[in-house]
Amino acid sequence: MGESPIRVLSVGTALPGPPIDTAALAERFGMDRLWQQWVDTFIGTRTRHLAIDLRSGERIQDLADLGELAAVQALARAGISAAEIDVVVLGTATPDTLMPTTVNVIADRLRIDGVPTFQLQSGCSGAVQTFDVAAALLATGRYRTALVIGGDVIAKHYDVKVDLAALPPDEVVNYLLFGDGAGAAVLSTEDRPQAPVVRSVLTRLSGLDQAPGQTLRWYGLADRDSAEAPASEDYKAIERLVPVLAEEVAEELLDDLGWERDQVDYLLPPQLSVTMTDKIAKRLDFSSAKEISCVGETGNNGNALLFFQLDRLLPEMATSSRAVAVAIESSKWIKAGLALERGR
Amino acid sequence: MGESPIRVLSVGTALPGPPIDTAALAERFGMDRLWQQWVDTFIGTRTRHLAIDLRSGERIQDLADLGELAAVQALARAGISAAEIDVVVLGTATPDTLMPTTVNVIADRLRIDGVPTFQLQSGCSGAVQTFDVAAALLATGRYRTALVIGGDVIAKHYDVKVDLAALPPDEVVNYLLFGDGAGAAVLSTEDRPQAPVVRSVLTRLSGLDQAPGQTLRWYGLADRDSAEAPASEDYKAIERLVPVLAEEVAEELLDDLGWERDQVDYLLPPQLSVTMTDKIAKRLDFSSAKEISCVGETGNNGNALLFFQLDRLLPEMATSSRAVAVAIESSKWIKAGLALERGR
Repeated sequence: MGESPIRVLSVGTALPGPPIDTAALAERFGMDRLWQQWVDTFIGTRTRHLAIDLRSGERIQDLADLGELAAVQALARAGISAAEIDVVVLGTATPDTLMPTTVNVIADRLRIDGVPTFQLQSGCSGAVQTFDVAAALLATGRYRTALVIGGDVIAKHYDVKVDLAALPPDEVVNYLLFGDGAGAAVLSTEDRPQAPVVRSVLTRLSGLDQAPGQTLRWYGLADRDSAEAPASEDYKAIERLVPVLAEEVAEELLDDLGWERDQVDYLLPPQLSVTMTDKIAKRLDFSSAKEISCVGETGNNGNALLFFQLDRLLPEMATSSRAVAVAIESSKWIKAGLALERGR
Repeated sequence: MGESPIRVLSVGTALPGPPIDTAALAERFGMDRLWQQWVDTFIGTRTRHLAIDLRSGERIQDLADLGELAAVQALARAGISAAEIDVVVLGTATPDTLMPTTVNVIADRLRIDGVPTFQLQSGCSGAVQTFDVAAALLATGRYRTALVIGGDVIAKHYDVKVDLAALPPDEVVNYLLFGDGAGAAVLSTEDRPQAPVVRSVLTRLSGLDQAPGQTLRWYGLADRDSAEAPASEDYKAIERLVPVLAEEVAEELLDDLGWERDQVDYLLPPQLSVTMTDKIAKRLDFSSAKEISCVGETGNNGNALLFFQLDRLLPEMATSSRAVAVAIESSKWIKAGLALERGR
């Protein structure tokens, strides 16, 4: 990864509103106890945070609000000022507007100016994509410190007046799986021996001829009346493919680095849902690694997930330890992996 | 830009439908001759291409269709197969869906797989941003050849039943300024002495405390009834700021390279509209450079513009010559520049 290693100096995160448990969702949408049990058994996600008020549908926070909060926390924890940021990369599937981009709204609020800013349109592997792009930019030597941000607010896809019982399962699942939130990290070639080093980042499109596993539509003026569902999942395809792709990317990462499975101390697996994460973690079989997951509490908040996992990892990451993160995007399939190492 | 220079091997472009002149727009929307004269005088854009049928509102082509056509042409002209592409970067303000990303739909159609793909959410400086990200990725040495794509289909923001006379000018202007289209380029560190070298790419957020000059909204399920205008322009701010930013970025580019103004043979100025482009080109005062513009015929097709300019530049770019391109994004302000040089 270039001459000076790229280090993760800090991570920050932000969640909107209070945690909303499945019982609260069931009550709001008039679903029964059986439904709750079904959710507990097959999804397992206990709480999620939403940037809308579930009763009124009123927007509480935008992605720019959450991204700003996460970035402020990351900068403070790194002891880095906005003036020291040389480049900003944000990943999201759900920008506040198409233009201006949310990365630029956040940068402006942080008083970051005169530097390159990029916003990736990305899904569950988006956080790794922001690391990938930022690492390449830092490796050119033209920049020293990057702010990477990831987050999603799926509020625009919620209709709080919906009759959940009347929706097909591939749409209902969106109300259960997903949550809103944002995270940020400061990456730098600055020499801070205590901070973990980014040993490898990889992202790979793996979608040849495979139908999208997730579709998220937007509407302009001309097609507001479109009958197309705003969000849908091919949950069966996701269940079948995500574990396979997760294993492939973990193998490639270990091969590249010459690491053995039992030399990995922390595993950050994909965070689609608690049940899926459990299945994948078992299949990956990093038996000596501690699993670092967040989805049970945060819900699947897309581009924010890796930051929430890193936020749990960093404070407890031991000296001389290694961490491997795997993320899979199921829209058009992308496999992504990140390897971190902390020195002595 | 690293050990091996990055070269532009080829460019491809694609436009939907036939050219639509201002008289045809006027006829469709019931505007009079005075209105046409107003458009000719203050905007100057003669034709644009639209991915919808102006009578029925029916979609003719999506961004993926146009991006695929442009990419196929660029690959053929470079004599590069899809299997030789190591990374794909697309820039657009108007993706077909939020998920899957349009870059991945196009990559899949081209049979590109197993490589990193990135989609930038970007405006009029988006093409330069794709060059910036691709150049950084190529400079790592991990990749040899990149496919960059840029395009926009603003069809979703057109309401063909609209009463133009009843709209405020900052919304009407969208019907006149913009067009749809896509472009692509093959960038490579392969040694092809005839192909121009990317000498410098720079993109800079310049938006501190400056209100957005352009806003482009999208709607999800929950806010389809929103009264917010889908697209609006602060044309006065654009007229005031774009020339200033264009001059700043041209200066920075020349300073970085140690080039004098009179050593530049081709100028590719910002392409907001014919009248704005004329003003800016005069102000930039590259008096010995030939201007390469497309907006009079293509309309402002956002992320595609630079590719259309390069498509005109490349066949006529002389040996031992230099070209400077400047692009300005007015949403949250970004200034961007690109310098190319062809050897003997």
